[in-house]
Amino acid sequence: MSDSPSIPAGLLASVTDPAALKRLSAEQLTLLAAEVRDFLVAKVSRTGGHLGPNLGVVETTLALHRVFDSPRDKILFDTGHQAYVHKILTGRQEGFDLLRQRGGLTGYPSRAESEHDLVENSHASTALSYADGLAKAFALRGEDRHVVAVVGDGALTGGMCWEALNNIAATKNRLVIVVNDNGRSYAPTIGGLADHLSTLRLNPGYEKVLDLVKDALGSTPVVGKPVFEVLHAVKRGIKDAVSPQPMFEDLGLKYIGPVDGHDQQAMESALRRAKGFNAPVIVHAVTRKGYGYRPAEQDEADCWHSPGAFDPQTGALTAKQSLKWTKVFSEELVRIADERPDVVGITAAMAEPTGIAELAKKYPERTYDVGIAEQHAATSAAGLAMGGLHPVVAVYATFLNRAFDQVLLDVAMHGLPVTFVLDRAGITGPDGPSHYGIWDMSVFGAVPGLRIAAPRDAATLREELREAVAVSDGPTIVRFPTGTVAPETPALRRAGQVDVLREDERKDILLVAVGSFAGLGLDAAERLAEQGYGVTVVDPRWVRPVPIELTGLAAQHRLVVTIEDGIRAGGVGDAVAAALRDAGSLVPLRDFGVPAGFHPHGTRAEILASLGLTAQDIARDVTEWVSRLDAVDTVEEPQATI
Amino acid sequence: MSDSPSIPAGLLASVTDPAALKRLSAEQLTLLAAEVRDFLVAKVSRTGGHLGPNLGVVETTLALHRVFDSPRDKILFDTGHQAYVHKILTGRQEGFDLLRQRGGLTGYPSRAESEHDLVENSHASTALSYADGLAKAFALRGEDRHVVAVVGDGALTGGMCWEALNNIAATKNRLVIVVNDNGRSYAPTIGGLADHLSTLRLNPGYEKVLDLVKDALGSTPVVGKPVFEVLHAVKRGIKDAVSPQPMFEDLGLKYIGPVDGHDQQAMESALRRAKGFNAPVIVHAVTRKGYGYRPAEQDEADCWHSPGAFDPQTGALTAKQSLKWTKVFSEELVRIADERPDVVGITAAMAEPTGIAELAKKYPERTYDVGIAEQHAATSAAGLAMGGLHPVVAVYATFLNRAFDQVLLDVAMHGLPVTFVLDRAGITGPDGPSHYGIWDMSVFGAVPGLRIAAPRDAATLREELREAVAVSDGPTIVRFPTGTVAPETPALRRAGQVDVLREDERKDILLVAVGSFAGLGLDAAERLAEQGYGVTVVDPRWVRPVPIELTGLAAQHRLVVTIEDGIRAGGVGDAVAAALRDAGSLVPLRDFGVPAGFHPHGTRAEILASLGLTAQDIARDVTEWVSRLDAVDTVEEPQATI
Repeated sequence: MSDSPSIPAGLLASVTDPAALKRLSAEQLTLLAAEVRDFLVAKVSRTGGHLGPNLGVVETTLALHRVFDSPRDKILFDTGHQAYVHKILTGRQEGFDLLRQRGGLTGYPSRAESEHDLVENSHASTALSYADGLAKAFALRGEDRHVVAVVGDGALTGGMCWEALNNIAATKNRLVIVVNDNGRSYAPTIGGLADHLSTLRLNPGYEKVLDLVKDALGSTPVVGKPVFEVLHAVKRGIKDAVSPQPMFEDLGLKYIGPVDGHDQQAMESALRRAKGFNAPVIVHAVTRKGYGYRPAEQDEADCWHSPGAFDPQTGALTAKQSLKWTKVFSEELVRIADERPDVVGITAAMAEPTGIAELAKKYPERTYDVGIAEQHAATSAAGLAMGGLHPVVAVYATFLNRAFDQVLLDVAMHGLPVTFVLDRAGITGPDGPSHYGIWDMSVFGAVPGLRIAAPRDAATLREELREAVAVSDGPTIVRFPTGTVAPETPALRRAGQVDVLREDERKDILLVAVGSFAGLGLDAAERLAEQGYGVTVVDPRWVRPVPIELTGLAAQHRLVVTIEDGIRAGGVGDAVAAALRDAGSLVPLRDFGVPAGFHPHGTRAEILASLGLTAQDIARDVTEWVSRLDAVDTVEEPQATI
Repeated sequence: MSDSPSIPAGLLASVTDPAALKRLSAEQLTLLAAEVRDFLVAKVSRTGGHLGPNLGVVETTLALHRVFDSPRDKILFDTGHQAYVHKILTGRQEGFDLLRQRGGLTGYPSRAESEHDLVENSHASTALSYADGLAKAFALRGEDRHVVAVVGDGALTGGMCWEALNNIAATKNRLVIVVNDNGRSYAPTIGGLADHLSTLRLNPGYEKVLDLVKDALGSTPVVGKPVFEVLHAVKRGIKDAVSPQPMFEDLGLKYIGPVDGHDQQAMESALRRAKGFNAPVIVHAVTRKGYGYRPAEQDEADCWHSPGAFDPQTGALTAKQSLKWTKVFSEELVRIADERPDVVGITAAMAEPTGIAELAKKYPERTYDVGIAEQHAATSAAGLAMGGLHPVVAVYATFLNRAFDQVLLDVAMHGLPVTFVLDRAGITGPDGPSHYGIWDMSVFGAVPGLRIAAPRDAATLREELREAVAVSDGPTIVRFPTGTVAPETPALRRAGQVDVLREDERKDILLVAVGSFAGLGLDAAERLAEQGYGVTVVDPRWVRPVPIELTGLAAQHRLVVTIEDGIRAGGVGDAVAAALRDAGSLVPLRDFGVPAGFHPHGTRAEILASLGLTAQDIARDVTEWVSRLDAVDTVEEPQATI
């Protein structure tokens, strides 16, 4: 920290725990907020990380730690990427030099780091459910503690929040819900709720608060809203700054707001009132994402939600740009849409990060942003398909887990043609365990009739995306990793639907490399060949169902080896082994993949190395395995088929 | 139909398609409604089926088919068990003699049965999402069709409905949502929304409609509501019978209601108004579950939601009662709760069917009904566990799929002690594919740190439930099938955590029988023994992680056979095979389970037989396999371990 001249060393350095905050004056808090923002910009400009969301919650977090008594009281951050300020205030300033780096501070709350952290999962819309459980537990055990959940307006579009609000209202437990309303999830928040929150923000009954908001934000958040809504809000006639608000009130929840979320004193005052209620209460804080750092504030395309390293003075990203998997998908999807008017796109509040934004620009009427609502994304896609369209649902691999039941019963059971494009599949890196897209081939591999493609490079991504969209009798998944697209790896030949990438005269080992692991497979094969083994490397292209050609190829070899960028349990290795069993093959199989566990953050390369997924490790293990096979007399004819 | 003297043959017989309805007079419709109810009671009394929900939607369904033009317009029934009347009116009266029987009429909509049916999945809260997709598709394609979704107030507690409403409000497409509000899901609907709907029902601004409702229902639905709510509703001052209603209006949805859902003319009038809007509109119909059949109307414990066969005169169930798996669980849970004050129960709107009701009776403050909200059930359980309690979440196996992401990241990633008790696991029977609990061992088997127990009888259910609740460092699943508990099957001995159920001198085949398939395994072993094979039968008790003892046992045999009541892909067979691979074993394995697919309804025995899961089939396949093994010279030492 001290090595950066841009950071005032004074106040912030003295805040090593929340107790220190409680001794500060109003003037000092204003200064501290500025220091926190400078600190955030300085640190994240070097490491990359979630900048915009954290700049927006500085005063809110200061207020929370002054009003409540963490860790005795429990403060939960929904979608934990808004917890940097919380980390700064709870003794972890030094850790920011290694933010999101292997062995360093995580990008989300972490119980290993601090007793002030509870929820490590960074999927959206969960915090209210945890909070309901905690509040129920404290009520039942007679513990006098407060529970506070901070949730964004974007996360409120997720169904879990509704389920939780419905329960919280019914239980009447003491629980404070801070709605951090910046009008955005990643992209601007969509839907009826967003319109409603906008109306609330506009409510002239709240003039005084609104004026503060306007002053603080520099411009009103109302630009572009139709006059009707303003008039309508007038008619609603809510007069008090602290007043039950109809929608939440309909559910039986008290409501305080809207509060200027960048007015430290106003936030504290609202939270103190909320703390005093013996019932669930919503504090509606209006904030601006990226507040206090001009490039992030003026961010329309949401580049500052979680930028890479950048120049803090100019805001220019310092990392060199390269062709990303996302970009390849994005361009090909637009080309397909040019040719096929029935192809439409769906995103769950992530049009830019998933590449759907390009489609939305060219065909806005054929692109649907459903909010952070993967379940609805899947089932509304089923409806679109029933209506004669072919939806392409673009989503991070880890987030499709939210819609397993919907993909299974709403899409697959009806045999509907919906293509799910899973970005950030496999080990991703700095976002850690809840962002690893390692479950899809296993979990969705269990869905009858669903086909899964794992392209290995740009050319096969384009090709397999087209094949997926051509399927008319059931769902398809196309999955690819994060970051720069893998080097082109042309096939020697195609055997049925399987691409043969390497062949030797001698056929000892059949190496089945899934998707972007083609290069890893070829490298491992090279090492094995150096030891005299004959290695065939294939890319199955479609991993579910298991291509029939693999069984025939396996029979020509002494050992089958699979390498996949997903968990082993129920993965491609298990599926190929089952296919061999069903074909009566006795050829042994060895599978490499992500072992069971929740693996820590780091770069993709670091994590893969730690999991033994390197060419060196694979070649060593396979060599050991084959040499033991050599020693077993009983396997003289390993290609035996019964 | 004609063989039942209780059914007037007249009008109903003439209604073979919806067009016939449109020619009837008001008087004829009243008569027809009565005939439909008689028909429902007469038919369901013989076959069993969803009686209560269908008695409640007779007039609604008549009105829908008179106002809209199915199949051109699309009518979707959420939680399809309320579609019997729709089936009766769309040419399927004759099929009711074989309702829910193999080869007969399904208990849910079925596209194979009728062009009037769309959605076969019977999980709750999905219809609005399909409807949103269909409405978007029709809008994009310029097709002039209406989309109508019928959804219960119970289903509205599911988060998917919220996600859908939020989107529907934003799209402004033409779409009619009929809320069938009977104040119940299975049990009475819980939560802030339910309270709110109650308030709506009470609203004195709606006197006229309410009077109709009161007259129709015989008693008001307001009994037991506090006076405060009534006064509060007065103050809200909504005066028109058809008027925007605040909560839905906040989302931008038009609202019509409440309408007496048993007043055919009122329903038609409301639906015609709704049809005329060029925007999404909610029609709030107040109905009574079981309406018109006294035993079902007076049903507090919800026995008439889906009864077995019964005497239509007395309402007495005709099936003999036997000890059910659910009952064993229910009793043991109460015993555990007696001993452990930290044990609490959670149900997702199904306290009676899952057996949580017994706990709720004895410990109401330690039992939580979260509504049809499995996601919240899982994550609020995580919160309860963080607060020092041990939650037991009782749910049908098929419904936990809704919470895969939450079990994975909210519960397992935090290593929290939550026990999920999965009732109706495996092939269930007459409810068909969306109710089969065949996915859990595969999908949740991929969750790191999660342990799965599959008890084989009442004694092991009690024992394994206690073991599960004793686990303090991660989630557990205890899963058992539907119906009468399997006969007691005592173990010969316990090897580590594995129960040995049968042993021969000779050791040819190790048969791993999962849970209630212990009996099936023993029967198959008997047949194999008759042919001279030596068979060991074991029950692993805990199937995830795979017990280490199985590897050692496998090494003593020539072939391992697994039998499980779940899908093969990623199931116990795959997991045992992987464990053997990892141990360096070359003993071949053959796995029996449910093949990939969505299998039709029937009795459990019929379905299992159709899938080859009988002792005869298994013994035949294993014999064939072993005799081929005998022929392979290379497998002289099959217990080889490398």
